[in-house]
Amino acid sequence: MRYSERVLNMQESPIRKLIPFAEEAKKKGKKVYHLNIGQPDLETPKEFFEGINNAPKVVAYSHSAGIIELRNAFSEYYRKWNMNLDPEELIITTGGSEAIIFALASVADPNDEIVVIEPFYANYRGFAEMLNLKLVPVQASPDNGYALPSKEEFEKVITDRTKAIIYSNPSNPTGAVYTEEEIKRIDQIAVENDLYIISDEVYKEFTFDGRKHISIMNFENKDRYIVVDSISKRYSACGARIGVFATKNKELLAQAMKFAQSRLCSPVMAQYGTVSLLKNLDDSYFEEMIEEYQKRRDAVYEELSKIDGVTFKKPQGSFYVSAEIPVDDSEEFIKWMLTDFDLDNETVMVAPLNGFYATKTAGKKEIRIAYVLEPESLKKACQILRKGIEEYNNIKTR
Amino acid sequence: MRYSERVLNMQESPIRKLIPFAEEAKKKGKKVYHLNIGQPDLETPKEFFEGINNAPKVVAYSHSAGIIELRNAFSEYYRKWNMNLDPEELIITTGGSEAIIFALASVADPNDEIVVIEPFYANYRGFAEMLNLKLVPVQASPDNGYALPSKEEFEKVITDRTKAIIYSNPSNPTGAVYTEEEIKRIDQIAVENDLYIISDEVYKEFTFDGRKHISIMNFENKDRYIVVDSISKRYSACGARIGVFATKNKELLAQAMKFAQSRLCSPVMAQYGTVSLLKNLDDSYFEEMIEEYQKRRDAVYEELSKIDGVTFKKPQGSFYVSAEIPVDDSEEFIKWMLTDFDLDNETVMVAPLNGFYATKTAGKKEIRIAYVLEPESLKKACQILRKGIEEYNNIKTR
Repeated sequence: MRYSERVLNMQESPIRKLIPFAEEAKKKGKKVYHLNIGQPDLETPKEFFEGINNAPKVVAYSHSAGIIELRNAFSEYYRKWNMNLDPEELIITTGGSEAIIFALASVADPNDEIVVIEPFYANYRGFAEMLNLKLVPVQASPDNGYALPSKEEFEKVITDRTKAIIYSNPSNPTGAVYTEEEIKRIDQIAVENDLYIISDEVYKEFTFDGRKHISIMNFENKDRYIVVDSISKRYSACGARIGVFATKNKELLAQAMKFAQSRLCSPVMAQYGTVSLLKNLDDSYFEEMIEEYQKRRDAVYEELSKIDGVTFKKPQGSFYVSAEIPVDDSEEFIKWMLTDFDLDNETVMVAPLNGFYATKTAGKKEIRIAYVLEPESLKKACQILRKGIEEYNNIKTR
Repeated sequence: MRYSERVLNMQESPIRKLIPFAEEAKKKGKKVYHLNIGQPDLETPKEFFEGINNAPKVVAYSHSAGIIELRNAFSEYYRKWNMNLDPEELIITTGGSEAIIFALASVADPNDEIVVIEPFYANYRGFAEMLNLKLVPVQASPDNGYALPSKEEFEKVITDRTKAIIYSNPSNPTGAVYTEEEIKRIDQIAVENDLYIISDEVYKEFTFDGRKHISIMNFENKDRYIVVDSISKRYSACGARIGVFATKNKELLAQAMKFAQSRLCSPVMAQYGTVSLLKNLDDSYFEEMIEEYQKRRDAVYEELSKIDGVTFKKPQGSFYVSAEIPVDDSEEFIKWMLTDFDLDNETVMVAPLNGFYATKTAGKKEIRIAYVLEPESLKKACQILRKGIEEYNNIKTR
């Protein structure tokens, strides 16, 4: 039987494809520290479950844009972030994933190009393949903490088929948080080249050292902006599958609503749970959460810095750090860590960064670490990683 | 700003686009019987909520194919239907909608053709537009209860770009239930023309007068079959957004899993709720439900039969009936029923069938009725419809 070209072109998730090796390691009795996937270990706040318990007893379709109570609650939440978004400017989606699909599909046709800052959230690639779009990368570098590339770098790749720029800020996988100047740069590029901006802001709470997230919605050219949001990380509710597609461009929203209507609605129980989270959860929750993640960031930073030959900067946000490590091929190394290495019967799984690049050969020596465990475990995991790198290179040079 | 051609080509949902007129009518104090949308009025069984209450307290991502407990439970459920489907042959999806998207995207590329039996579930069209596929219709007719068209009709439209045949059985919107001979005909066409069969079987429980649903999975050429399933209707849980993509073609499943991985997982709370429904709900639930829907079907059949000039057959399954009514343009008529008509301050909203056809001019005189209210309300609604048709034609011919 034949399969579509679009699916054959899709790569396996770089976050998930090595999982069979981790499973094999566990079968052999090894403990595996999972730093490969951004799955927080924190309990989902009880307000989520309370909201679900108060949902109606007929689990009916909701409005395709989401229940109005939830759109109202998100609108109020955004105002706290100085984002002026009315309830009718929002579509509640099935996770941030669906918001990205709606955004890409609303602005681009097959063979159109989307400029992406690489390394990028790996699943952008999957969504682009599904919709037959071409991701055109502009490359950031571990040398300067994956800061935004220059305007000239963007201009080199923009063509008359380019329809949008997509990025995440704070960044998954790099941990970079863009400054006002950097976002302004993206905005100018979009205006000068008549592009949309798809700004994935699902980590907006996760900024450290007193930094504050700046949304694209704080800028002027609002018809060009689509904000992608999700509750997955900030409420440790990845499985809820609640996201948001937000735009002040009314015609764009009307167009995207056609996709929303065709899939009927996003998960209704989780919509009620999210209303309760947004309305009833105290802001101190975030303060404590960010304090905890900053401790984790610090633990990883401290331990990674001890590894000879590693290149990275202290991450500023999200809960990831990308780093170049002194190995030839990080994917081979990660596999080897699972199949051939342990320290006191423990090992570590991280994600190879190559799959987060559109450029085929890029990121070969880089990895992504998700710091989603408590600080002591993270320290231990990084120490194991260090020993692993040493032993791996010893074997390689033998 | 520019929008994609794919979204500009999408039509608004024929089920939802007239809702503003219904809202206007309600503002004026009219009662509106909603027979336009397949939203059951029954309470979702308590087992669903019990399952949710037993879910883990970290609402984490699940396996991209769904939690194994749920795949196990579906596999057992399918065995009761004589469908031999193992847990690893299933992907739990976000509603049947997502299963259809995965199916289409896995087998067809832009400009490829999918043969569809029209009138069809209207959202097939939206999914096809999103993926730049062409729906090529083969037309069924109200004269014979929308029975399956002949093999010759299919052969007329199949080209070397045709990749699959898609249909729903029992049918939304027509209420037809295909016989073994009819499904065999589809199977033969698929084999002779090297096509996939995407069989949307979400209404499998809903068959009347002792008829039994026959799944495509009961036939021989299993590599060609994709079954689309959903819990929305059978458990009155439309908002749960739990569906299934099922195939015995292992390579096809592996390919479709790439789409599943890129969107991470389907709603997890609802997955736990569904495990409980599948494991704990007594089969007598279905017996009572079908008995109730058969009463509803009978009520609609009896009252519709009293309308002069109506063309339809007694529906055999699902909870819809499509019928040709004696008006020039059913969409105009439905609008008029909401804006200009009432019987004792009550009116009815049904769906215009034209939007369920790919052929532009087809179905102009047809409507779809969803019989999702209790029998007395349905009788009343049909009586209002009859009066409406009479008055509408009186005005028109004046």
